[in-house]
Amino acid sequence: MEDLTKYPLLQKINSPADLRALPEKDLPQVCSELRGFIIDSLANNPGHFASSLGSVELTVALHYVFSTPDDKLVWDVGHQAYGHKILTGRRDRFHTNRKFGGIKPFPSPDESDYDSFVAGHASTSISAALGLSVSAKLQGRDEHVVAIIGDGSMSGGLAYEGLNNLSNTPNNLLVVLNDNNMSIDKSVGGMSQLLISMHSSRIYNKIRYKIAQGLRKIGLLNEERANALIRFNNGLKAMLFRQRNIFEGMSARYFGPINGHDVHELVRMLRSIKDMKGPRMLHIHTVKGKGWEPAERNATVWHQPGIFDIETGERIVTEGGSPRFQDVFGETLVELAKADERIVGITPAMPTGCSMNKLMNELPERFFDVGIAEGHAVTFSAGLAKGGALPFCNIYSSFMQRGYDNLIHDVALQRLNFVLCLDRAGIVGEDGPTHHGAFDLAYLRPIPNLTISSPYDECELRRLMFTAVQPDMGAFVIRYPRGKGSLVDWRCPLEAVEVGKGRLLREGNDVAFLTLGPLGKVMESVVDEAEKQGVSVAHYDMRFLKPIDTEILREVGEKFKYVVTLEDGCVTGGLGSAVVEYMTANGYAPKVEVIGIPDKFVEHGTPEELYRVCGMDKESVLRTILKFKNL
Amino acid sequence: MEDLTKYPLLQKINSPADLRALPEKDLPQVCSELRGFIIDSLANNPGHFASSLGSVELTVALHYVFSTPDDKLVWDVGHQAYGHKILTGRRDRFHTNRKFGGIKPFPSPDESDYDSFVAGHASTSISAALGLSVSAKLQGRDEHVVAIIGDGSMSGGLAYEGLNNLSNTPNNLLVVLNDNNMSIDKSVGGMSQLLISMHSSRIYNKIRYKIAQGLRKIGLLNEERANALIRFNNGLKAMLFRQRNIFEGMSARYFGPINGHDVHELVRMLRSIKDMKGPRMLHIHTVKGKGWEPAERNATVWHQPGIFDIETGERIVTEGGSPRFQDVFGETLVELAKADERIVGITPAMPTGCSMNKLMNELPERFFDVGIAEGHAVTFSAGLAKGGALPFCNIYSSFMQRGYDNLIHDVALQRLNFVLCLDRAGIVGEDGPTHHGAFDLAYLRPIPNLTISSPYDECELRRLMFTAVQPDMGAFVIRYPRGKGSLVDWRCPLEAVEVGKGRLLREGNDVAFLTLGPLGKVMESVVDEAEKQGVSVAHYDMRFLKPIDTEILREVGEKFKYVVTLEDGCVTGGLGSAVVEYMTANGYAPKVEVIGIPDKFVEHGTPEELYRVCGMDKESVLRTILKFKNL
Repeated sequence: MEDLTKYPLLQKINSPADLRALPEKDLPQVCSELRGFIIDSLANNPGHFASSLGSVELTVALHYVFSTPDDKLVWDVGHQAYGHKILTGRRDRFHTNRKFGGIKPFPSPDESDYDSFVAGHASTSISAALGLSVSAKLQGRDEHVVAIIGDGSMSGGLAYEGLNNLSNTPNNLLVVLNDNNMSIDKSVGGMSQLLISMHSSRIYNKIRYKIAQGLRKIGLLNEERANALIRFNNGLKAMLFRQRNIFEGMSARYFGPINGHDVHELVRMLRSIKDMKGPRMLHIHTVKGKGWEPAERNATVWHQPGIFDIETGERIVTEGGSPRFQDVFGETLVELAKADERIVGITPAMPTGCSMNKLMNELPERFFDVGIAEGHAVTFSAGLAKGGALPFCNIYSSFMQRGYDNLIHDVALQRLNFVLCLDRAGIVGEDGPTHHGAFDLAYLRPIPNLTISSPYDECELRRLMFTAVQPDMGAFVIRYPRGKGSLVDWRCPLEAVEVGKGRLLREGNDVAFLTLGPLGKVMESVVDEAEKQGVSVAHYDMRFLKPIDTEILREVGEKFKYVVTLEDGCVTGGLGSAVVEYMTANGYAPKVEVIGIPDKFVEHGTPEELYRVCGMDKESVLRTILKFKNL
Repeated sequence: MEDLTKYPLLQKINSPADLRALPEKDLPQVCSELRGFIIDSLANNPGHFASSLGSVELTVALHYVFSTPDDKLVWDVGHQAYGHKILTGRRDRFHTNRKFGGIKPFPSPDESDYDSFVAGHASTSISAALGLSVSAKLQGRDEHVVAIIGDGSMSGGLAYEGLNNLSNTPNNLLVVLNDNNMSIDKSVGGMSQLLISMHSSRIYNKIRYKIAQGLRKIGLLNEERANALIRFNNGLKAMLFRQRNIFEGMSARYFGPINGHDVHELVRMLRSIKDMKGPRMLHIHTVKGKGWEPAERNATVWHQPGIFDIETGERIVTEGGSPRFQDVFGETLVELAKADERIVGITPAMPTGCSMNKLMNELPERFFDVGIAEGHAVTFSAGLAKGGALPFCNIYSSFMQRGYDNLIHDVALQRLNFVLCLDRAGIVGEDGPTHHGAFDLAYLRPIPNLTISSPYDECELRRLMFTAVQPDMGAFVIRYPRGKGSLVDWRCPLEAVEVGKGRLLREGNDVAFLTLGPLGKVMESVVDEAEKQGVSVAHYDMRFLKPIDTEILREVGEKFKYVVTLEDGCVTGGLGSAVVEYMTANGYAPKVEVIGIPDKFVEHGTPEELYRVCGMDKESVLRTILKFKNL
């Protein structure tokens, strides 16, 4: 716990009501203390750093002006919500943030009434808050609803769908656009440019000149096109003055941009627009990492920096051991791309997280960061593939839930050659239930024309990537977890594996142990231990979920009475289901124990803690295997 | 086949090259013939009518100006693409459109090189075409790529994600916005209003006045706010002139709006912008149903009118028999909503298709058509639910693939009371592989905190809807097919059923027959026939996939050696999987035959034809059951 005497005002704020009891002149000091508290806390207990520093003044102003929790704040993503947590009764437990059993990583109504809506995935806030606002109105409650959305989240189609519906039904929603020109990496796309343009008029004359030029090209100098021109010109005049920007185009009243680090200005502005009717948009400018100089300079690195030295400002990086699967992916992709001109890389806003920044640096013209836009990432990749390129599209497993239709409709149906790498598959740890990649195996397996694989170790990841670029492989999924692999020397030669073929890693007689992915490798010592304790285990690395290796399954069906399956995914619908479907359809009747993520949302903690909760740790798996001793 | 002598020009156009060989002055006649051909064809062979009439001139102009198929046309949705099919070598087979083995319902590269990309779901064209354009550029091909998107599709977030990425990478994409102010029902939302505003300047002065008013409110009259105002004013000036509209905000050059029924004007405009570099947007205005007066008057009815009398212009409606599940849903929803003030209805652009128009007419303030925006539909509903309303969100099963993350992240994780009705579940028929609701049972089953049900008949639909509104039911899915039910008298009393409980419909000794949904009812005669042929069948209506009735499963496991499951969904991951998972985990070893949609994309045809293809028709199911005779 922090030494609270350093925070004379903050230590007295046990709820927003305490904040609201302060005179407005004290707010800058509250902000300063809150910022200091966040920096102190995160130096020792890592978390999402830069976003929360950028939203300190906004957080204080919102809770000062609005009557939370009766008024509702809906944070988008929730990276920015640490200040909100600290002001809403969670200050003294904030040192448990993201820890097993501690404060949740993202806003959650389960934890606090001040958390109006869950917020783990981006771009949800406008839709959710619009629902809250309409709901309140329908039920005659006169409450304020505020959505707080970063500019990065504005690249997601859901945010646009929400905006587009602001005019659809009476509501009094206030949308605060917290614009730091930066999502996790950097904002990309037209919306980002549009936002940048909103506080700069320097090329105004240049644009007018371009419009005039455009007119000349279209028809001004061509008499024959006079009729068309008259209509065109009328349209032009109308358009020039109708909307100041997209937000007004969407029927929301637009205010700003204002300085998001001037708490007095924020309070004044919020007060003046608080009780206006109808949808409103307040655009504020903030600096990601505000108040911590290294973070202001490099917000990408300081998005989630790990622990750091509060005196020197240096991140404390504990390297060594095996490389991460991400590094292997990133380097192998560059290796493959250099050898094959067709290969391109696509990521929705995660070049650093998935290590596609290596491709970005080496072959920038074949790298595409499309912003937080998973659906587009998949359909755009499908277009690239249809045109003859060979896309590696890398998406975090839980975010891929947003590209599901695109994968079915735009990729699988057309049998395109397309490599989908699902990073952060399985249990991810501290980011919690919104981020576990629990469902991918289950939701992908029913899709026709799809190959689904998971590597046993880093060399297998390389081999699967190489296999996926062989001719006519169709849509090829490779899923792997966050973090370290098991090999230090992973630069094995690039060789193709046979699609749909697993391998027997170790012979045994009593129990067949079928695993998919790197959890199998983790369990090698468990298989040893079981052997020592008198259970002979045949360990198969299935490697492919689809097509599944039916030779192995037939062998297992014929030879074994007891089968244990293990996958880093939900127990419903994945490897375990595939195995029992085969057994039952083919008249085999082994007893099958399916180990995986149980049918519930798994909370946050270290991966080790969570594997234990799920019965997927070494001890639990050993226990499961030993159940079959002497049967 | 049509009498081609009525179409002197069209009969000579066997490919777009033939069209391009004509002098430009002939194009209006080509358009007129093409329109006549479409009307003649669709009078006898029903299909998507009004959209294709609206795009006749555009289609002719595009194929006239661009060198298809080297240049690529990407149609959004493809409702509008009949003219395209007829001009691209499919004229003489067009009478087989949407028929089993005939011309496909939507553009498909499998069918024609002129179909550059699949197009069954809305809002995909910009992303896909951007991929094609970038791919061509990367590979040094100098081809033109054109996306043709309707205004209705512009409400989908994917279209926005595509637009937002136009500036992300060099490309020469041309986006044609075919704006008829009408999606399937009617366009909703701000984008629609924005488009409408683009060809009207009448309230230009009013808007300027409002801006001035806004300034006054914000600070013009308040000296204290002078500093803020200077910044604000600068921003305002910049915004006023920087973008004419959202498209220029997205860095695309904008042209139009022009009259989309003047083929000469279209040709001139397309020629003048064809070879410009960089992304461009051409905005055209068309009339849905153009040239067929009844359709111009009521485009919603004439979207997909069925057959009609070409002389009188009247639709030939064959009513009678049982009502559709849609009618039962629509009327029951109104009944429930009148009794419970919390209930609201949400549909993404399908009020007529799903019959939520009944609620729209009776209780308009509790009805929300959010446009083609499935993700928003779910998250907005989640917000409504969190605020205390009780949403019935109705989405076609295959479109729900776009709301998957929203259901997991925004609904299930928060355990909200939320009713999701999945219309068009299972085989849908003529709309083909993009529209079959094949995957929902499989992709929903792994989601925690979810109840998944399917009614046996119309009364069961009413009972399930009533059950879903009981206290604390959480997220409750009801899936049912397109079309007619089995009961004429369906107005049974509203009674709740026990969640997770199925029922034994008929006792038997040889084979357990476990069905989910109305296909079970269809098979009653099959069970009779099997009995006659000496196989005694115990028929269970499972009613719930999740939680599944483990009492029934235990009974079946204990009593039966042979089990047949039947569901109107894919064989992987649904009811069949749930049954074999239970059996294997609990030490039962019946032989289980899983009947459902096989692991491939099922083409188009009548439902009867497709059930036969899938082995889900009465004869096939009977054969499967009889396999167990004398075993």
